[in-house]
Amino acid sequence: IEEYGQAQVSYNLTNYKITPLHVLFEETCKEAERLGARVTGSELVGLIPLAAMLETGRYFLEKQGKSPGVPEDELIHIAVKSLGLNELSKFEPQKKIIEYQFQEKHGKLAKLPLHKFADELSLDSPTPGGGSTAALAGTLGAALCAMVANLTYGNKKYPDVWEEMKNLACQAQQLKDKLLQLIEQDSEAFNKVMAAFRLPQKTKEEQEAKAKAIEQATKEATLVPLEVMEVSLQAMELAKIAAEGGNVNAISDVGVGTFMDYAAVEGAFLNVKINLPGIQDEKFKADTLAKAEKLVAQARGLKEEIQALVYQKISNKEK
Amino acid sequence: IEEYGQAQVSYNLTNYKITPLHVLFEETCKEAERLGARVTGSELVGLIPLAAMLETGRYFLEKQGKSPGVPEDELIHIAVKSLGLNELSKFEPQKKIIEYQFQEKHGKLAKLPLHKFADELSLDSPTPGGGSTAALAGTLGAALCAMVANLTYGNKKYPDVWEEMKNLACQAQQLKDKLLQLIEQDSEAFNKVMAAFRLPQKTKEEQEAKAKAIEQATKEATLVPLEVMEVSLQAMELAKIAAEGGNVNAISDVGVGTFMDYAAVEGAFLNVKINLPGIQDEKFKADTLAKAEKLVAQARGLKEEIQALVYQKISNKEK
Repeated sequence: IEEYGQAQVSYNLTNYKITPLHVLFEETCKEAERLGARVTGSELVGLIPLAAMLETGRYFLEKQGKSPGVPEDELIHIAVKSLGLNELSKFEPQKKIIEYQFQEKHGKLAKLPLHKFADELSLDSPTPGGGSTAALAGTLGAALCAMVANLTYGNKKYPDVWEEMKNLACQAQQLKDKLLQLIEQDSEAFNKVMAAFRLPQKTKEEQEAKAKAIEQATKEATLVPLEVMEVSLQAMELAKIAAEGGNVNAISDVGVGTFMDYAAVEGAFLNVKINLPGIQDEKFKADTLAKAEKLVAQARGLKEEIQALVYQKISNKEK
Repeated sequence: IEEYGQAQVSYNLTNYKITPLHVLFEETCKEAERLGARVTGSELVGLIPLAAMLETGRYFLEKQGKSPGVPEDELIHIAVKSLGLNELSKFEPQKKIIEYQFQEKHGKLAKLPLHKFADELSLDSPTPGGGSTAALAGTLGAALCAMVANLTYGNKKYPDVWEEMKNLACQAQQLKDKLLQLIEQDSEAFNKVMAAFRLPQKTKEEQEAKAKAIEQATKEATLVPLEVMEVSLQAMELAKIAAEGGNVNAISDVGVGTFMDYAAVEGAFLNVKINLPGIQDEKFKADTLAKAEKLVAQARGLKEEIQALVYQKISNKEK
C-alpha cells in the first residue's frame, strides 16, 4: 500500500479451530522476517468468536511464561496487544466479538459496585437476597483459588506443579464466571416466583394456569441454588489442590477461599430447603433434596479437610 | 419575596443537636399552616454535618411508618425529599455535607463492580486478597441481617419486635459500613508491609529503620483482620436476634448472613495467624493471638446455635 509505505497481507479465516489466530499471526511474522520485514499490526474485518480471542490471549501469555488463568477481559486485552489489533484502528471488543453482540457480558447485579450491592441487599426489597449472596460467596472463593494458582505458576519454588496450577487457574476462572452469572439467575428466579403469585385466579382456567406457573417457577428457584451448591463444591475441590501444592505464602488465601465456598454451599442449601415445601411434585422434591444433602455433606467434609491442611501449613510457617 | 410571590423564613442553625433540622422544619410547617400557608421547600446555605442529615432521614422514615435502618444514601435521599431541599436549588450531598468534603465516601475497592472485584481478586497481584474478601463477607452478612430486620419491622405479624428490629437494622447498617471500610484497610495495611520490605538496608541506620517499619506495618496488618473478626462477630450476634424473632419467611437469609459472618471471622482469623510470626514483640503476639482465638471460638459456637435455630424454623415451615 503506497500511501502508508507498508505491505498488507490478507486472509480469509473460516474456522479458527483449524487455523487459530495466533498460528496465522506467528507464521506471518516468520515469513515477514524471512523477507527482512516486521509485522507492525493487524486488523480484523468482520466479527470474531469469543473463544478465538481467549485462545489467542492464553497462547501469548504462556509464550511470555505467564499464567493463562486470568479473567476474560485480561485475555482479550493480551490478544489485542499481541496481535497489534489496535495499531491500524481501535479494536472494540463490544463491537468485534460475536457473543458480545447478543447479550451483555455482565448482569445488572454483577455490575453494581460492592458498596451499592451491600446497600441493595440491606433493604427490604426481596432481591437481591441470600440466594444471590451465596452465589457471590462462591464467586469470591473461586477467584481466590485462581489467585493462589496464579501465585504458584511460574514461581521458582514450585516447578513441579506449574502445569497443575495453570489448569487450576483456568478452571477456577470458569467457575468464577459461572457463579457470577448465578448471582443474577437467583434473583431472576425469585422474581419469577413472585410474578407467578401475582397472576389472576378468578376463573378455573386462571387458577390452573397460576398453580402451574407457581410450580414451574418454584422448581427453577430451587434448581438455581442447587447449581450454586454444585459449582461451589467444585471450587472447593480446586481449593484442596491449591492447599496441597500451592504457594505456601498464600495459604491463608486458600483458607479464606474455602470458607467462602463453604458458606456458598451451606447458604444455597438453605435456599433449596426453603423452596421445596412450595413444590407439589413429590419425586422432584425427593430427588432434589437427596442431591442437595449429598452436596452439603461433601462440602462439610471437604471444608474440615482443607481447614486442617491450612492450619498445618500455617503452623509449619511459624517454626 | 415579591419576585416569586412567596414568603421566606431564615434561620441560623448553630447546633443541630439542640435544634434538629426536622424539628425546625416541622415547627415552621405548623406556623405556616396557622397562617394559612404551606411550606413549599427549603434551602441550605453553607454546609451541614452528615449526622444531622441522617437523623432527619430517620425521623421522616419513622414518621411514615418505615424502617429507619436503611443505607446512608437512602437516609440522605429521604431527608432531601422531606425537607424539600431540591425545590429551590439542587441539593448536592457531595458539596453540602461536611464529611464528604474531606474524604471520599467509598474507597477504591468498594467502588469496583462485583465482576471487576472478582477479576482483580483472581489475578496474582497481592491485593485485594483473602483479608479484603473476609471483610467483604462480613459486609454481606451484616447487610442480610439489616434486610431481615427491615422485612420484619412494620410487618403485621411481628408487632412485638418492631422496636427491636428497628434498632437491629440501624446497628447492622453501621456494622456493614464499618466492614466495607475494612475491605479497603486490609489491602492498604498489606501494601504497607510490602512497602516496608522494599526499604533500603545498606547502612546500620537503614537496617534499623527498616526493621522498625516492618514490625509496625505487620502489627497493623494483624490488627485490621482482628477488627474484621470483632465486627463480624457483632454481626453474628445481631443475626441471632434476627433468627429468634425475625420474619420467618426470611429465615434462609438469616442463615446465609450467618454463614457469611462466620466465613468472615474464620477467614480473618487465618490472616491474623499468618501475620503473627513476622512480629518480634512477644507480648503483642500473645495478646493478639489470645484475643483472636477467643473471637473465633465464640463465632464457631454462635454459628452452630444460629444454624440449629434456622433449620428448626425451616422444618416448622415444611409442616
